[in-house]
Amino acid sequence: MTAPAQLAPILEVGGDPLRESMVRTETALLSAAGDHGDVLRGFAEGTLSAGGKRLRPMLVYICAGDLPVSEAVLSAGVAVELLHAATLVHDDVLDRADLRRGQPTVFASGGRSAATTTGDLLFSRAFAVLVRAGDAEAVRVLSAASSALARGELVQRADAWVVDVPVERYLERCELKTARLFEAACRLGASLGSPGPGAAADALADFGRRIGVAFQIFDDVLDVSGPVERTGKARGTDLLDGTVTLPLILARGLDPLLGDLDLRSAVTTPAEAEAVCDRIAATGALEDARASALGHVKQAKAGIAGLGLPAKQKQLLDLVADGVVERYS
Amino acid sequence: MTAPAQLAPILEVGGDPLRESMVRTETALLSAAGDHGDVLRGFAEGTLSAGGKRLRPMLVYICAGDLPVSEAVLSAGVAVELLHAATLVHDDVLDRADLRRGQPTVFASGGRSAATTTGDLLFSRAFAVLVRAGDAEAVRVLSAASSALARGELVQRADAWVVDVPVERYLERCELKTARLFEAACRLGASLGSPGPGAAADALADFGRRIGVAFQIFDDVLDVSGPVERTGKARGTDLLDGTVTLPLILARGLDPLLGDLDLRSAVTTPAEAEAVCDRIAATGALEDARASALGHVKQAKAGIAGLGLPAKQKQLLDLVADGVVERYS
Repeated sequence: MTAPAQLAPILEVGGDPLRESMVRTETALLSAAGDHGDVLRGFAEGTLSAGGKRLRPMLVYICAGDLPVSEAVLSAGVAVELLHAATLVHDDVLDRADLRRGQPTVFASGGRSAATTTGDLLFSRAFAVLVRAGDAEAVRVLSAASSALARGELVQRADAWVVDVPVERYLERCELKTARLFEAACRLGASLGSPGPGAAADALADFGRRIGVAFQIFDDVLDVSGPVERTGKARGTDLLDGTVTLPLILARGLDPLLGDLDLRSAVTTPAEAEAVCDRIAATGALEDARASALGHVKQAKAGIAGLGLPAKQKQLLDLVADGVVERYS
Repeated sequence: MTAPAQLAPILEVGGDPLRESMVRTETALLSAAGDHGDVLRGFAEGTLSAGGKRLRPMLVYICAGDLPVSEAVLSAGVAVELLHAATLVHDDVLDRADLRRGQPTVFASGGRSAATTTGDLLFSRAFAVLVRAGDAEAVRVLSAASSALARGELVQRADAWVVDVPVERYLERCELKTARLFEAACRLGASLGSPGPGAAADALADFGRRIGVAFQIFDDVLDVSGPVERTGKARGTDLLDGTVTLPLILARGLDPLLGDLDLRSAVTTPAEAEAVCDRIAATGALEDARASALGHVKQAKAGIAGLGLPAKQKQLLDLVADGVVERYS
């Protein structure tokens, strides 16, 4: 596994026990996709081996405390990543996306049916793997996160083209479609791992939720700022989808022309989307949005500061928190 | 709940305890769809309240033995139906279906995104509800069935337009896409219900698998035989999708013209599909396919005959087995 740049400091502090856990995650992900017929295995393996940062399993493991991880904790990490992969495959169907992480999507290589079905399989496998941890409460946590993801996706599509969406509604969407799974990762790790201080599970779950919101805000900033060579996708794809995110919400208050913009009629080509990205950037809204993300990270770190966590665990969590807003910077 | 005709004898023998369990199922299904935002609730409730026979929950309850059912057994019945509903919603997206059970599909009323997401939500809710039974093994059983459904769907699409598909492959597909969920329903009921004879859970699971295969074969016969007023869909929709089922497989050996038929070029309109249905019917293949379904039902009933089940439970299971091949007859 070649780790993306922002994971390097985390893996350095985590050392061999964390590295070994991440390698076991890769093996377990591929094994979870196997045994379901050649066609499906091909698609599922393709999706999973295309990589990604494995940030969610890493959060599970760090919150669990002891490294290398137990089998139960490993199952939780793998389950969270399988669920994440399932939603990506379905998102690609809905967005008709051809590439993800530089690889052809299942939608591109197998079509709509194969991709919908592969997503369904990955959903099923997430629960099948998690239940190996033998904990019914863990299944409840993951299915609640999974319901939230679905709801977030639907809220986003219901809000499409609504340029005057309130910030609160935007943040609720970030929470549903992204932060709840980060929260679940931390809660699963804390509850299946070595017992920490009594209130640690709830506090770690809050930590996960906050960095999840920061992660999503920063993702939305990257869609406007690029650069393309780093993000792997054209700038302004959200605008073309009608997805209104924090940079545009903030910029609308700063630039009257953006305030009057009707996305559906005015942003229909990649060139138009790039021009609007430039205009958003010119308002300074990207810095404001980044500051908002950093505020969530700061809150997240403050929330676990007084828990009395072991120094190394606290250090790793801080590095993960910083990592979610330091991508490509 | 207005029960379809073939369920009437089952409800008569099951009496008030079974009726009450089915009513509780409806309430629990709607409650499982709630609490996830108005938009999603609307779609999910619409799907679930559109009805259906609730054959799978009924199987769970009958296999569980004692009626009315315990909360744990009810959860299993509701979970199985939620999973079934999830796959129907996704199937409707893939088939671009406008109507199901005479109601607009989520795909028709909300579009592709809403339907894909509603399906994902129903998947999540299935596991969330099941885990209330507090049994990790139950989650394993359901997720294995869910993986099989996904695989069956993919096998079906991989085999599309392949007119010379072997009968064994067709039966494998029936098993994956239909029978495994019937099997899971019986296994869940047997394992969560009142303890029966030692080998009963495996034998009941076999029973479920066999009537599931029969159910699918009979479904495929109905697609060719109609009548439209009873099935609610045009004859030959499978042919138009390129889905090759037992009636055509058997008819190809009996009518050389059908043997040479290239579905993709020769069956492109509803009228052409109806003409091929007539030609299949003329070979006598529908009777042969019905006989195959009845053979599976007979095997299913024989497999539980020597278990020493309570007389009423055995009678109910026999009625369900007969019911799957007596639809619309």
